[in-house]
Parts: sequence; structure tokens; C-alpha cells
Amino acid sequence: MCVILCCFINLPTNNMRTKIVQVYASRVVRRDDVRIKITHCGVCYADVIWTRNMAGDSKYPLVPGHEIVGIVTEVGSSVKGFKVGDHAGVGTYVDSCGECEYCNDFLEVHCSKGSTFTFNAVDSDGTITKGGYSSYIIVKERYCYRIPDGFPLAMAAPLLCAGITVYTPMMRHKMNQPGKSLGVIGLGGLGHMAVKFGKAFGLKVTVFSTSESKKEAALKLLGADKFVISSDKEQMESLLQSMTKSLDFIIDTASGDHLFDPYMSLLKVGGVLVLVGFPSEVRLHPGSLSYASRTIAGSLTGGTKQTQAMLEFCAENKVYPEIELINIQYINEALERLVKRDVKYRFVIDVQNSLK
Amino acid sequence: MCVILCCFINLPTNNMRTKIVQVYASRVVRRDDVRIKITHCGVCYADVIWTRNMAGDSKYPLVPGHEIVGIVTEVGSSVKGFKVGDHAGVGTYVDSCGECEYCNDFLEVHCSKGSTFTFNAVDSDGTITKGGYSSYIIVKERYCYRIPDGFPLAMAAPLLCAGITVYTPMMRHKMNQPGKSLGVIGLGGLGHMAVKFGKAFGLKVTVFSTSESKKEAALKLLGADKFVISSDKEQMESLLQSMTKSLDFIIDTASGDHLFDPYMSLLKVGGVLVLVGFPSEVRLHPGSLSYASRTIAGSLTGGTKQTQAMLEFCAENKVYPEIELINIQYINEALERLVKRDVKYRFVIDVQNSLK
Repeated sequence: MCVILCCFINLPTNNMRTKIVQVYASRVVRRDDVRIKITHCGVCYADVIWTRNMAGDSKYPLVPGHEIVGIVTEVGSSVKGFKVGDHAGVGTYVDSCGECEYCNDFLEVHCSKGSTFTFNAVDSDGTITKGGYSSYIIVKERYCYRIPDGFPLAMAAPLLCAGITVYTPMMRHKMNQPGKSLGVIGLGGLGHMAVKFGKAFGLKVTVFSTSESKKEAALKLLGADKFVISSDKEQMESLLQSMTKSLDFIIDTASGDHLFDPYMSLLKVGGVLVLVGFPSEVRLHPGSLSYASRTIAGSLTGGTKQTQAMLEFCAENKVYPEIELINIQYINEALERLVKRDVKYRFVIDVQNSLK
Repeated sequence: MCVILCCFINLPTNNMRTKIVQVYASRVVRRDDVRIKITHCGVCYADVIWTRNMAGDSKYPLVPGHEIVGIVTEVGSSVKGFKVGDHAGVGTYVDSCGECEYCNDFLEVHCSKGSTFTFNAVDSDGTITKGGYSSYIIVKERYCYRIPDGFPLAMAAPLLCAGITVYTPMMRHKMNQPGKSLGVIGLGGLGHMAVKFGKAFGLKVTVFSTSESKKEAALKLLGADKFVISSDKEQMESLLQSMTKSLDFIIDTASGDHLFDPYMSLLKVGGVLVLVGFPSEVRLHPGSLSYASRTIAGSLTGGTKQTQAMLEFCAENKVYPEIELINIQYINEALERLVKRDVKYRFVIDVQNSLK
């Protein structure tokens, strides 16, 4: 059986703009599959990268989107965790080998044989995976998440990439210790989630942003304790002196090139900077690490178990991403604005109401 | 009371050679002091740096040496942990504020007010500290270590800088897990101790060295499981492929500039590279950290509690540094050889028998 899906796909046209088309999905619901009618899909910078073939491996026609939420409409015979009508989500990957040391540790994104990304990846049946800019998606139960009752579906979407990308290293590096201090570099989709988690963990949060326009919202809406305009050299130099060895942790979400030594100097002895952004290189003086036994670590989204735990943490603590809800017809403008960092703080596509 | 000490001091002469002279020590034994007749002192690269004023802050006449062991000859009235005749050691620092958060955590080397280094530092009484190329040293009890009974004194010396510099991060990053795998970059004073600790912890150890001449000793004497000549491009490239994601930990003791990305690629998901060497910079691709949630961390010797614990671990597990015992009259040649990396693996000065 083939089902007709209505998708927003990207074709390699001159202007790389995305268009609505109808495509055929080749997959039926298997015994361990969950079929989700998509209500919302977050817009991640990955959608820019692959719709524009910036990584050089885009497979057109391409359906982006890996912050997917919706309502279960069908489940396979062996599915135990979901039933029709449940709220469910899908993140950045939809399969993995399921039996390697990482899969056994529920770190499927690090699967030894490679996890299968939600879009633009070759699936086990040879087809190319298609993401959440679509009316439906069929995914193995293991890679679907339960969206807690009452959690606003639109706001759940950004948790499945932006949220888990910062939550995972925050938990791994034990940042959930009330009273400790956190610096957040960059205030986009990831940065604003780092601030939200930081406040939910009881941390004192300082935001470093190049954009003064984000100051008020950072302090009042997100609840940050301090806002530093990192592009203001004088302000930075003065603050770097007064804040030396004052932070326990830093989450660095900036993808633009920037110096690391000044930020490292803000960390206390044993402090940790986690890099989740993607500058062109990381370059620092060895003393920035050695003199105060500091650490710089990377991270890449998270495993299924921790993603589910994060969703529950967010529900319990009312951690809701800040979103700008858009119709899918606005997606090209949204992607343009995302490139220009003109978003507070995550676009979420109202798939249900705009893709019929 | 002033006591006359016989010291090996460095004067800023043209050739920077070190000479034996007699100097007056201004300090008497205070209530919390321990007086140690020095039997042995290890030769650390720090001795090269400061005798040659490479850091630009050398205060001549300078008495180097911060891997000090000997026999207690006098204790102050409040000293409880030492008595005359005990074997005792002194490491890289001899004082700290004793009341900041780091001192309270026995991380005195990171003291908020700055720890007082064993030589070339300004002591609390305004005098310049003098190190272990000397017949005696007087140090506050807190910064003296008990050398376990029966531990060869000459072999205890290198533990107090080289040993603790690798032991501290190995413990902090939980490398004492039998069956895990460790890479050691560079096989000098620090590197050979990392191999010894690695084997004592039950790790599988791979050594990366530029010097083929160290291969046999690395495998047979130190017990490494594998030896890779890192200067051999072909061997490295082939091994980098076959060993991708195979190591849990790396201790990088190399102070020469080298690429970091290839070594990072050897680390498993979540793996840790600890930098204890001092290259001119650390430069890597962010993906080396992010894709596999890897970490690069620095470290700087260790606190008093952990130094004592390490000495006891070494005694229990017969972890003995490999040393070349020298007379103090040979020190200038030894420092020259140290610069040329011509030492297996630590020079130790036989102070007792050559400085009378």
C-alpha cells in the first residue's frame, strides 16, 4: 500500500526555494512503526544547510524538518508505548542498529553503524528519509517520543533538536546544580533553550550576545540574570576582568568564529565550556585549559532515553520554548530570516493548519 | 637563628650554568614547619625554564627543584603528621591561603590568592622561595607529604611533579577503570608515568612517540601494549584509520606543536584527551569535539590530599618511576640533555651524596 503525502519539498532550482508538491510515500506501517499525523515542525538551521546543499550531499527532492510533533493515527502490531490519539514526537534520527554499545546505552545518535537521520539519509530499505515539512511520518517506535499530556504541541517541537542539543551536555556535565553559574554564548534557538534550562536548574545565567536587541527579552522574558553585548569590545574587556573565574559552566551556541581564550578565562577552576555551535575552528592557548584544569567539550543532540526524560522535565517545570508560529507558505522567508538570525527564538510550522 | 645551607644556585651568567655556593637561609623552623634534610631532587623541565629565565620572571640567585624528598630532622611544636626520622617530600608549592574554596577542597595549587611555588616565588615573609637543589628545606606541614615506608626515596621524587601531574587528571576523568584503553602522547617524564599509572589501573596502553629509540623500553620495561611512531606519517595514517574511535582516554604530554584532530579521532564517543604538555596552541575542528561528544581538558599538578593518595597508591602497586640518578655536579649536562629529550625518563639528583 502506498499513501499519498502532501509535503513541502525542496528542489534544486536556481533560487533554492521550497515548494509544495504531492509525493508518494513508499512505506506502510510495519509491526514496530508508529504513524504520526504531523501538527507542527520546528525550523532548524539544518533545514537551511540541506535545502541549500551547503554540505554538498543533498538528495533532491528533499523534505526537511527534524523537530516533529503530531498525533498518532496508526500503530504496528508490536507497538506497546503508543496508541492512536497519543501525542508523539520525532527528532533528528529515525533508526540505528539497535545492538551496538551505544544503542544499548540509549545513545543511538552515536550508533557504531551510524544512525539514520530524519531527512536526506538512506533508510534501511534504500529510500531517502523525508522530514517533518509533511502531513504524515512513519517512524519505528523506538525513535518516537511521548509528548506529555497538556504540553502545547507547537512548543514541544523545538525541544526535539534545539532542546535536546543543549539538555544532553548540561546533564552530562552536571549543570543541574542550583546556585551554580552558567554563561550562554549566542541567543538563538539553542541559546534560548540553554537559558531556560539554566533557570529551571536554579543557575545564575549570564547571556553573551552580539545583538543588543535581545537584551530586554533575555532578561525579562527568559529570566537571564545578566546580559553582556559581546560585540562591544569595551564592555567585554571590562567584564572579562571583573568576571574572571566566575562561571562554573558555559554553553557556547555561537557558530560565527570567535575567540575562545577570553571565555575560557571566565570559567572557575575545573569549569566546563560545551561547544554546540559550529565555528570554523576551535583555537585556544593551552594555558586556558591547564592553569585552571578547565575543559572544553562537544556534544551532538542526545539519545532516546534522555530525550524522553527531557520532555518530562520540561512538562514538570513548564519549560516552554519561545516560538514564532508560521504557515508553511512562509517557509522561504523564515529560512532567509533564520540565516540573518532574525528569529525569537524558533520558527515552528503550523503544519496541521497550513498543509492540507 | 640563621642556618647555613649548601645550595646549587643559578646565577644569570652568560652561559646560564649552575654553580654550587653557600647561602644563608633566613627562616627558622616555625610551629607548623617541617625541616627536611634533602636526599634527592627530581629534575623537571621547569628547572630549565626558570634557570634560563625563559618565563622572563627569574629572580637570581635561583635555587631550582620541586620534586624533593628527604628525611625529617626537626618539626615545629604544632606538627602532628611528621616526626624526626620520617621520610617526607615536597612538591611544586609550599604555601597557599589555606581558607579559600579551593584550599578547603585540598586543591591548594588552585588557591584563589595564588599558591606559593616551591622556588622563585615570593614567600609570605617577602623572601624568595628556594627549591630542592639544596641540602635542607623548611616547609609548612600541610605542604609536606609522607613517603610510605620502604618506598625508594630516589624514586619518590619524580612523583611529586611528573607523577601527580598525570595522576590528578587520570583520577578526575575516571581513567582507573580496568579494561579501558589509554593513549599516551610523548614518552618523557610525564608520559612514562602515564603509562605506569595506566598499567597499574588495568588499562590497555598505546604510546605515541616521535622517538623509535624508546620503543623497546616502552613495550618491555614500561609494559605498554602498543607503540606508534608518531613522526612516521604512513604508520600514523594507517593506524589512525584502524584505530578510529578505539581509545577511551588520551594523555597528551607533548610540548611540541602537533595536530589535535587526528588524535581526537582516535577517541571513542565521550572520550577525553587531557593536555598536560605545553604546545604553543591548541587548534582543532569543532567536529572533533561535537560529532562524538568528546572532551579536551587541561590539568595542573594536584592538591595535597590527592598527592598523598597517589604516593600511597604507588607504594601499594609498586609504581616506581624510571630514573637516572646523577650527582649534582652533572646538573648542567642533565639540563642540556633534558632540553634534547635525552633522558629515560627522569633525572634525579643524589643530593645527599653529592652535595655535602
